[in-house]
Amino acid sequence: MAFRKITPQDISQFSNMLGDRYVLTDAEQLERCSHDETEDLRHMPEVVLQPGTVEEVSAVMRYCNDRLIPVTPRGAGTGLSGGALPVLGGVVLDMKRFKKILKVDKENFQVTTEPGVITQELQEVLKSQGLFYPPDPASKGSCFIGGNVSENSGGPRAVKYGVVKDYVLNIEMVLPNGDVIWTGANVLKNATGYNLTQLVVGSEGTLGVITKIVLRLIPAVTHDLLMLVPFYSATDACKAVNDIFLAGYTPSALEFMERDALEWSMRYIQSAGIDLPPEIQAHLLIEVDGNRLEQLFEDMEAISAIMQRYKTGEILFADSHEQKQMLWALRRKVGEAVKSNSVYKEEDTVVPRALLPRLLETVKRVGQEYGFHSVCYGHAGDGNLHVNIIKANMSDEDWQNKLPQAIRVLFREVVAMGGTLSGEHGIGFVQKSYMDIAFNDIQLGIMKKIKDVFDPKGILNPAKIFVN
Amino acid sequence: MAFRKITPQDISQFSNMLGDRYVLTDAEQLERCSHDETEDLRHMPEVVLQPGTVEEVSAVMRYCNDRLIPVTPRGAGTGLSGGALPVLGGVVLDMKRFKKILKVDKENFQVTTEPGVITQELQEVLKSQGLFYPPDPASKGSCFIGGNVSENSGGPRAVKYGVVKDYVLNIEMVLPNGDVIWTGANVLKNATGYNLTQLVVGSEGTLGVITKIVLRLIPAVTHDLLMLVPFYSATDACKAVNDIFLAGYTPSALEFMERDALEWSMRYIQSAGIDLPPEIQAHLLIEVDGNRLEQLFEDMEAISAIMQRYKTGEILFADSHEQKQMLWALRRKVGEAVKSNSVYKEEDTVVPRALLPRLLETVKRVGQEYGFHSVCYGHAGDGNLHVNIIKANMSDEDWQNKLPQAIRVLFREVVAMGGTLSGEHGIGFVQKSYMDIAFNDIQLGIMKKIKDVFDPKGILNPAKIFVN
Repeated sequence: MAFRKITPQDISQFSNMLGDRYVLTDAEQLERCSHDETEDLRHMPEVVLQPGTVEEVSAVMRYCNDRLIPVTPRGAGTGLSGGALPVLGGVVLDMKRFKKILKVDKENFQVTTEPGVITQELQEVLKSQGLFYPPDPASKGSCFIGGNVSENSGGPRAVKYGVVKDYVLNIEMVLPNGDVIWTGANVLKNATGYNLTQLVVGSEGTLGVITKIVLRLIPAVTHDLLMLVPFYSATDACKAVNDIFLAGYTPSALEFMERDALEWSMRYIQSAGIDLPPEIQAHLLIEVDGNRLEQLFEDMEAISAIMQRYKTGEILFADSHEQKQMLWALRRKVGEAVKSNSVYKEEDTVVPRALLPRLLETVKRVGQEYGFHSVCYGHAGDGNLHVNIIKANMSDEDWQNKLPQAIRVLFREVVAMGGTLSGEHGIGFVQKSYMDIAFNDIQLGIMKKIKDVFDPKGILNPAKIFVN
Repeated sequence: MAFRKITPQDISQFSNMLGDRYVLTDAEQLERCSHDETEDLRHMPEVVLQPGTVEEVSAVMRYCNDRLIPVTPRGAGTGLSGGALPVLGGVVLDMKRFKKILKVDKENFQVTTEPGVITQELQEVLKSQGLFYPPDPASKGSCFIGGNVSENSGGPRAVKYGVVKDYVLNIEMVLPNGDVIWTGANVLKNATGYNLTQLVVGSEGTLGVITKIVLRLIPAVTHDLLMLVPFYSATDACKAVNDIFLAGYTPSALEFMERDALEWSMRYIQSAGIDLPPEIQAHLLIEVDGNRLEQLFEDMEAISAIMQRYKTGEILFADSHEQKQMLWALRRKVGEAVKSNSVYKEEDTVVPRALLPRLLETVKRVGQEYGFHSVCYGHAGDGNLHVNIIKANMSDEDWQNKLPQAIRVLFREVVAMGGTLSGEHGIGFVQKSYMDIAFNDIQLGIMKKIKDVFDPKGILNPAKIFVN
């Protein structure tokens, strides 16, 4: 599809639709919307539009659809797969003005929100009313709930509470042609037609522009306990993960961090942090939550006993809110720390949980074969390992040409284990060239035809998920 | 699409594919496959095929797709929306030979099964290994897991554990053209391409023929407690439901039964059953489960205290396994009891939970206006009310012409409450004429185009979900 460049006349039309102040062409705004948190990628849009109502989104979409102008929706720009990058230029649809929590329905344990609400702020508003929305991506302090829905985000709590898709009941979205639809109904059970809601969750802004979201909620949980377990062997740490589940325990978080991850994070946030003896190779950060404190202590005791099956250092039990905050900050800042440390690529591998040790070994083996250093960490309880590949002193030549081959080898082994390319970051722009490893032409053909159903002209977030 | 009738030559081709004994044309088999559990509907197939392998399913589908022969997949025939009825004749694809549990992966809390396994048998095999697959439709003793996936079935435990869609990780299916695909990966988190798995779950056998299913599992739960609470007012019973959740409790079952439902069920299974004083208008059947018995007793005490806010009779706490079995049998047999009692239609209304009292009042009001008697029961904790409309002495004329208008009025009010047509039974054949109440032409258009992506010739389970 041959897209059209934006003309001065388009700009004045956009101004008529939204008002001048919401049609941005200054260098600063274009630059701001030229990147998200994916590597060091930059792609300039031609204009940034900031609609404030569903009607305005509809008008913009209809206009661009009629004129073959590409539109890339943007949340908070915290994505890690380049989903918000306007790689073909055109319009960035900046959804930041959709920041109202429209209705907290305590009676029904539901909330209706606009997509531009910061996830953590939504969680805090709900918590103040005794309601709990669990999914908590590392970027929760800055990411938008709309972006979370678009990526089907996870986070540490997914291991017990599930990911975003497990909480989305209904979505209002604007189709590329400007039509506005709801995808489902505000009910806990729904066997009425095809599940458009679940199709849209995780579709990375390629099927429609999300303008309202209805989430199911659960009662707030009153207590949590946190411990940090140091291991002499990273493989042991991965093995210990599955033992916890086999013993019948489901922690509310079960995070793995290689030594480097924790070390870099400590340096990054200049936290006195924790004691890190040279022999420690990895840590598990384990949280349990519930409403009965005495029981959580029992669980923690049982889990730490399970950890003793392996060679561990001294287990740190967080004994204050501040210490919990510090430990979580260390975990949540790993990504930023690595980013600040070196040019890198982040992979979001996921395998059946029991295969985590094999996944880690595979990452290191492929790294040795192809000469890259990696820092691994992530949501071990879900079998979801973030692999940060560090450029360090790898040549630009190898970084450009040899590394993609290495990643293909890694993904092939991941898929052979029953795993797949991304657990929570999405495919977006930077992983699409690997989709042929996870899916054959028949599967990809079906997905592309589904894209065509929603976006026949292909103007919405083009060049994402699929190579062509 | 003009479908073709089956010829003797087709039959001999099918025999070459499957072997004579699996190509059935005798009256008894055709009759068996002419109905499911939906009302008293009968639609004769031209032939019943019983493939035993995915290759055989593929061969049959390709053959029928090339020749425009309609194919209706069939599980155990326990459906309540007519999804398995071969309303246009042609082939019934009887999946009963797909009855192997292929792999119980205890390490990863997953099971890979064929679709023709009886749900309860699957659950028992898993339980014997300490694993738990919660969804338990009333028909669990006879329904197939494949049918459950096709309908996105629920059951009493959905209120705590979710429905079938919350457990399906990956599906192997045969497309109408004979191609075989997997829909996803065997992982707990997946942000890799569109969620074909969730699109197929609940698609009622209209997108492909399911041949393998990968389910996630959870650790088996060791204890449960059950109580039956009699109410003087059915509306009070519905109100009490939400109080339980607002107090922070999530029962593992929370079932509502109108007096008639329980009475008819007691008569049907000739159970000495329970004492049913004339002033009792409805019951709540409430179960809590977990691994700490003392805690469950605390929960039951707290919940029964909440019940005391209303005018209730004496609460029955099941004090033996036998009594639990008896109470559950009473609940599970309501549908069959009503069926045996009169010609009836069953609606599967679902609304946001707190609106359950209003839903019940609406059902009764519409019943009075249009002169039908209804017996209501169902999964109150999910806002999912089964409305059995009894023909009794309604004239055939009114049953045929007036009742559908009444149902439209009821569904319009349900949708106006934020609810929808079906919580767990699906749309299938008998509810499709009401789809325009839940969805507009744009929504229906998208769904139909998605159907076309998978089944361009429309041979697979035709005349279901959509009117045209």
